[in-house]
Amino acid sequence: MKILIMNGPNLNLLGTREPGIYGTGTMSECVTVLRERYPEVEIDCYQSNVEGFLIDRLQAAATDGTYGVVLNAGAYTHTSVALHDAIRSVSLPVIEVHISNVHCREEFRRHSMISPACRGVICGFGLDSYRLGVEALLKMYLDE
Amino acid sequence: MKILIMNGPNLNLLGTREPGIYGTGTMSECVTVLRERYPEVEIDCYQSNVEGFLIDRLQAAATDGTYGVVLNAGAYTHTSVALHDAIRSVSLPVIEVHISNVHCREEFRRHSMISPACRGVICGFGLDSYRLGVEALLKMYLDE
Amino acid sequence: MKILIMNGPNLNLLGTREPGIYGTGTMSECVTVLRERYPEVEIDCYQSNVEGFLIDRLQAAATDGTYGVVLNAGAYTHTSVALHDAIRSVSLPVIEVHISNVHCREEFRRHSMISPACRGVICGFGLDSYRLGVEALLKMYLDE
Amino acid sequence: MKILIMNGPNLNLLGTREPGIYGTGTMSECVTVLRERYPEVEIDCYQSNVEGFLIDRLQAAATDGTYGVVLNAGAYTHTSVALHDAIRSVSLPVIEVHISNVHCREEFRRHSMISPACRGVICGFGLDSYRLGVEALLKMYLDE
Amino acid sequence: MKILIMNGPNLNLLGTREPGIYGTGTMSECVTVLRERYPEVEIDCYQSNVEGFLIDRLQAAATDGTYGVVLNAGAYTHTSVALHDAIRSVSLPVIEVHISNVHCREEFRRHSMISPACRGVICGFGLDSYRLGVEALLKMYLDE
Amino acid sequence: MKILIMNGPNLNLLGTREPGIYGTGTMSECVTVLRERYPEVEIDCYQSNVEGFLIDRLQAAATDGTYGVVLNAGAYTHTSVALHDAIRSVSLPVIEVHISNVHCREEFRRHSMISPACRGVICGFGLDSYRLGVEALLKMYLDE
Amino acid sequence: MKILIMNGPNLNLLGTREPGIYGTGTMSECVTVLRERYPEVEIDCYQSNVEGFLIDRLQAAATDGTYGVVLNAGAYTHTSVALHDAIRSVSLPVIEVHISNVHCREEFRRHSMISPACRGVICGFGLDSYRLGVEALLKMYLDE
Amino acid sequence: MKILIMNGPNLNLLGTREPGIYGTGTMSECVTVLRERYPEVEIDCYQSNVEGFLIDRLQAAATDGTYGVVLNAGAYTHTSVALHDAIRSVSLPVIEVHISNVHCREEFRRHSMISPACRGVICGFGLDSYRLGVEALLKMYLDE
Amino acid sequence: MKILIMNGPNLNLLGTREPGIYGTGTMSECVTVLRERYPEVEIDCYQSNVEGFLIDRLQAAATDGTYGVVLNAGAYTHTSVALHDAIRSVSLPVIEVHISNVHCREEFRRHSMISPACRGVICGFGLDSYRLGVEALLKMYLDE
Amino acid sequence: MKILIMNGPNLNLLGTREPGIYGTGTMSECVTVLRERYPEVEIDCYQSNVEGFLIDRLQAAATDGTYGVVLNAGAYTHTSVALHDAIRSVSLPVIEVHISNVHCREEFRRHSMISPACRGVICGFGLDSYRLGVEALLKMYLDE
Amino acid sequence: MKILIMNGPNLNLLGTREPGIYGTGTMSECVTVLRERYPEVEIDCYQSNVEGFLIDRLQAAATDGTYGVVLNAGAYTHTSVALHDAIRSVSLPVIEVHISNVHCREEFRRHSMISPACRGVICGFGLDSYRLGVEALLKMYLDE
Amino acid sequence: MKILIMNGPNLNLLGTREPGIYGTGTMSECVTVLRERYPEVEIDCYQSNVEGFLIDRLQAAATDGTYGVVLNAGAYTHTSVALHDAIRSVSLPVIEVHISNVHCREEFRRHSMISPACRGVICGFGLDSYRLGVEALLKMYLDE
Repeated sequence: MKILIMNGPNLNLLGTREPGIYGTGTMSECVTVLRERYPEVEIDCYQSNVEGFLIDRLQAAATDGTYGVVLNAGAYTHTSVALHDAIRSVSLPVIEVHISNVHCREEFRRHSMISPACRGVICGFGLDSYRLGVEALLKMYLDE
Repeated sequence: MKILIMNGPNLNLLGTREPGIYGTGTMSECVTVLRERYPEVEIDCYQSNVEGFLIDRLQAAATDGTYGVVLNAGAYTHTSVALHDAIRSVSLPVIEVHISNVHCREEFRRHSMISPACRGVICGFGLDSYRLGVEALLKMYLDE
Repeated sequence: MKILIMNGPNLNLLGTREPGIYGTGTMSECVTVLRERYPEVEIDCYQSNVEGFLIDRLQAAATDGTYGVVLNAGAYTHTSVALHDAIRSVSLPVIEVHISNVHCREEFRRHSMISPACRGVICGFGLDSYRLGVEALLKMYLDE
Repeated sequence: MKILIMNGPNLNLLGTREPGIYGTGTMSECVTVLRERYPEVEIDCYQSNVEGFLIDRLQAAATDGTYGVVLNAGAYTHTSVALHDAIRSVSLPVIEVHISNVHCREEFRRHSMISPACRGVICGFGLDSYRLGVEALLKMYLDE
Repeated sequence: MKILIMNGPNLNLLGTREPGIYGTGTMSECVTVLRERYPEVEIDCYQSNVEGFLIDRLQAAATDGTYGVVLNAGAYTHTSVALHDAIRSVSLPVIEVHISNVHCREEFRRHSMISPACRGVICGFGLDSYRLGVEALLKMYLDE
Repeated sequence: MKILIMNGPNLNLLGTREPGIYGTGTMSECVTVLRERYPEVEIDCYQSNVEGFLIDRLQAAATDGTYGVVLNAGAYTHTSVALHDAIRSVSLPVIEVHISNVHCREEFRRHSMISPACRGVICGFGLDSYRLGVEALLKMYLDE
Repeated sequence: MKILIMNGPNLNLLGTREPGIYGTGTMSECVTVLRERYPEVEIDCYQSNVEGFLIDRLQAAATDGTYGVVLNAGAYTHTSVALHDAIRSVSLPVIEVHISNVHCREEFRRHSMISPACRGVICGFGLDSYRLGVEALLKMYLDE
Repeated sequence: MKILIMNGPNLNLLGTREPGIYGTGTMSECVTVLRERYPEVEIDCYQSNVEGFLIDRLQAAATDGTYGVVLNAGAYTHTSVALHDAIRSVSLPVIEVHISNVHCREEFRRHSMISPACRGVICGFGLDSYRLGVEALLKMYLDE
Repeated sequence: MKILIMNGPNLNLLGTREPGIYGTGTMSECVTVLRERYPEVEIDCYQSNVEGFLIDRLQAAATDGTYGVVLNAGAYTHTSVALHDAIRSVSLPVIEVHISNVHCREEFRRHSMISPACRGVICGFGLDSYRLGVEALLKMYLDE
Repeated sequence: MKILIMNGPNLNLLGTREPGIYGTGTMSECVTVLRERYPEVEIDCYQSNVEGFLIDRLQAAATDGTYGVVLNAGAYTHTSVALHDAIRSVSLPVIEVHISNVHCREEFRRHSMISPACRGVICGFGLDSYRLGVEALLKMYLDE
Repeated sequence: MKILIMNGPNLNLLGTREPGIYGTGTMSECVTVLRERYPEVEIDCYQSNVEGFLIDRLQAAATDGTYGVVLNAGAYTHTSVALHDAIRSVSLPVIEVHISNVHCREEFRRHSMISPACRGVICGFGLDSYRLGVEALLKMYLDE
Repeated sequence: MKILIMNGPNLNLLGTREPGIYGTGTMSECVTVLRERYPEVEIDCYQSNVEGFLIDRLQAAATDGTYGVVLNAGAYTHTSVALHDAIRSVSLPVIEVHISNVHCREEFRRHSMISPACRGVICGFGLDSYRLGVEALLKMYLDE
């Protein structure tokens, strides 16, 4: 079973970017922990600051055997109709995750363009949001 | 470690209410499964259609040894400043959960009054949303 | 054939409350007249100031042989997502009624949260709104 | 006692127009039934697609002995300040009726320009909405 | 194959009305050109300043063998729920056209009440918008 | 010098319609007074409840030697893009007048669709608003 | 002379709830001080987290000899049409009070549903807001 | 009979300020013409850039025998609640005038804070707007 | 202990201005009563119709030994960012007061620009609002 | 004569993506048909998921002899100020096309950021929208 | 070459007013530094809390040989249509400056009424904003 | 000292793109002038039409010894949450500049997503805006 963790803009800076909000853990540490905990799952990881490259990668996932996607679209969450359409265009379950509780921050972070296209949403648990996303995908996989 | 699962209005009808949206599983089945999976956790369960009784129960949880709360406030999610204040008033971590992906439904369900007061939000995974809420609380508990 | 007339907050004061708007007739007089006019119908009557108790009673109606409900939700008409959901959750036809023409009053009374969940809406006929609600339910009953 | 039933744009197509929403009964069948049921009432009927002709007819009703009007203004319900003013300009009681429950449809159908000028509103009961409107006028007539 | 070209208010002035926006060609010249170019198509033409007469004509088209309608509703485009309903009420394909690019003009011209009821929209090509509308209908006709 | 006084919907009822707002003077009395006071001016008068007929008449004025128009569009003031366009389409100066001070009434009467197309606006002076409109046109005529 | 001090949701936690905003004084201390300062006044006190119970109590006050009410409706201030109606329904003067200056906090706390139904509003003085409310009622009582 | 012409901010620059919009005539020329045309009227004139001084002057007019005021409040038209209140506070008829047709300009000029407090509004006639304001006051004076 | 009572535009007319709303008492009577009741307090009084002069006076109060300010900013309450900033700029406690209950009046009176900068707000008690403001300042003074 | 057909995000999936909305035809089939039908036209084709690459390509078209552009910007239609500016920056006629009637879909698809910069708009005709765009460009070319 | 530095309300308190936002430098220090750095420029300085006096001074600058104005309108930035008009009325280049980055503060500070009338805007550089304003004017002067 | 000048979409066309708005100077001329005027500063220059590449470059600047950034984000100014976050994520001072006065243009250009994340904003001075940005950074550098 293959899962893709996809991160949007500025999430490559995780660990150094505004640690008061995003914590000090890095994405690679996060993925290492996940791979150890879920050895039965093949976990791919992709990050880009370019909206269109995220769409390219999501489209590729639809045909490379990926079961589902854990997507932290970062700032594109709030503005990208194109990502919304891309999620709708592929048949994979996509889980929207956020590290911080976006509802405690600026007003414009409370609206997500992609939530209606995703299967579910998880936010506010730090890097554990990613793990909960993987958990959710695993449950779907086992329920099939 | 004690956890309270708290359900708001009409969630007592789970299993019969609009099964196309909420599924056919009942709340008691859901709790039974959770208690089996997490035997080390004491799981309390409370439901009321009365906004004020939910506040009463949440206040009580703050002094009866409860570690955290998994809260599906149902329709009060979208209207209750009083629940928002109650969550702020107690020091427990409260996780907001929803069975359906509220972002795919009526516009008024996309705004939550209580999210800014909660630790995190999980929605769209059916009854598995409750389990993911318990998972999140467990992680917090272990990280302390 | 059993019908439930359900009244929301402050409607227990009917006859004394702002008679310029609501008239001087009381609810019990209204029900007496209805029972006389429709002897073939069993008319139950319930009033509460508590939103959640109205939901409790509506849920109960779904399983006690009630055919339909004439609901004047009073102020909760304009704010209650929970009542909206409760109406959706039960399979009874619910008729929304109002004594005054709410469209001639404050702006916030022009929007009803529950109308989309009800079968139909009747407003502005004084206590005769209740009778017209019963008439409408009778017609549905006979058409089945 | 004379009553005018007045229908706005496209209601001449009743019976063939979007039967999923408006049913298959025609307006003339509806009036026939009403005349049979209320032989003591003289029922006039008028339909036009022209906003101004509806106003002309309403003004005429004010001086031809009509007691009251059952008005389904169709699409003009949502846009016509002119009809609002016409209703205000005549001293007849006007009852606003709709066949469908407009609150379950497009957002723009939830706002009525004419409700504040009408005596009361009835919607959602199919062609029975017209009968309830006649009932309401009869009650007013008898109460005088 | 019969097509109806229907024009709304003030379009009878085409050629003299604000030529900077609408050009100097008249509607009759436009129709002459179309009839020459598409001799296999019978092209009817109707203009009225009265919203209700446009609805009357559209309803008539539904039963006189017309295949489809090219509709420039002029100012009623932005305000007429009644035309929207009329288009929905008939089973003909209706193409919305505009001479100018309405999106470059006053803000209130950017919203069309009738677009959701039409098959497609063409705007900004001067009188060629009408020809493109005829082209589109021809393609639909041939594809059947 | 010829002037057209044009009145929109319900203004034929002037003198009987809501006299608290519109006064008890009739339109024909008003015109008689104006003709006496300004014998050098030929004053035409037109009223219709039909939006499209008002447009027809306005278009006709553009070619029958009329110098300018005093227009009380009544309720169409607030809704008619078509009248706005008609005024723009003719080269006559059009003066918008209102009997009452529309700014003291319902919110929706504070916005005029036609003001930006008119030369000027006069409101709140009772029937004297019409005289002031004639005065304004006379001044323009003399200044040329 | 009898006065009722009525407190809404979460105000039972006063003294422990967010002391940075609400201070460390408890409600019972506050009432003790008031009773000492105004021995000529009988001061009743009621708190509930249930919106409907607050309405029940307010209705009871209308018939038990209470002169006026000092009401801190807490979170229901911002959402409760039902409390608004209840205040309108009774003939007692009701003074709206708040401990904190609600205008310095979240935007949604700046709007009160109940202010238009109350005699006056006092906010921002900590527990002294209650005393100022009593002072205001005393003045009204003496002025009668 | 005494009339006050009162001008708000920047109107002292009339004749040099944006002549494309406001023309090249000065205020003193305008007043000279008015005094010649209406010798029976005593015409005072006041201009200030200070909102409060305009209020001072308006209050003074209420006690110095002034019959009415022709007020061009300039930019304060759109922002000044204080002028609105001042007009309400005095018993004089105040006529709001504008040189340009404010409805053809920036959106924020279409809303007037003072119109609801004035007797009537005249705009768009250049300096002739002042004369029409005087005419309107004269008519009121003669009608008394 | 010195207190400044500061009044904004049109409040010099108190006693004659719209007595139905503001009562018949004058400001000087109000101050006389306050000086008698609180002989230990030195009460200064200032009124101006000029926004900037109110700011000047408030700035002066910050350095002339004034303990606090009771401010009825009148119409500037709703529009003045400058007064908001002035209050923030001085270290004195400023109490916002209003004679009428502004929440029962025009919508634009329900929003105060200065409340977030003030210590507290008191409205709706007639001239007693000023006394309650003095009471509140006295309490703060004694609590220090 | 050279024309560029430019497609935005997710349009590379045409034929497989949500066929209920977009149909089963692919873009390459569409271009083949166009090249056959218009052999005199050189048709280039470009697709990218990256907003900036679409701008790069559009800028290139301005200097490579392209006569005009048929642009389906997909999701960027609704969000891209940058594409709007790019279209403005080049002197080519750009025709906005859409496969589906965007006005029948989600509300956010009804607003286009790029329409005001384009020459005209065509939507709702399936792949025939592209052909109509080519037709429109050909007409412009022949009219020059 | 003469430049006027004009400061609006509360800027006379610079150095003592909210130093966390505005710094501890005073305006006279700022001007001294500027005069030393730009000895070839004559720098005038004016401050007032009165909106109208700022307009008076700006009008005076138009005729006293001033080349341009560096304007920090303080709170009037956000509310003053009158200043907007005054800037438009004079032919001087006016540069809008702010000490703090107004975009990081309250929402109402993000909108400037005067920006569209100014030549350019500079904000967020502390007192250096004034120097950059002078630099900008110098460049314009030299470019002429 | 190293400074990065970063330009967003379509700014590579400077000199040819809408010269009425943006002037005829090119970016390379602008940089040449700056390098001559500030020989002590190393000035890098980067332009891209791709939002994500701008973020990549900004992130790179944070670690390559750049002191600060002068950023003209072009159209992304108004839409890019991602750039906002990128600026927040790096510790460099970023100055937002615009060539034209964006406040005189379309409404959507008046709101900047990135201003709250930038140190300051400069707009409206043509290419001199870039020089003023460099000036501002130099001052910050010297003040450290």
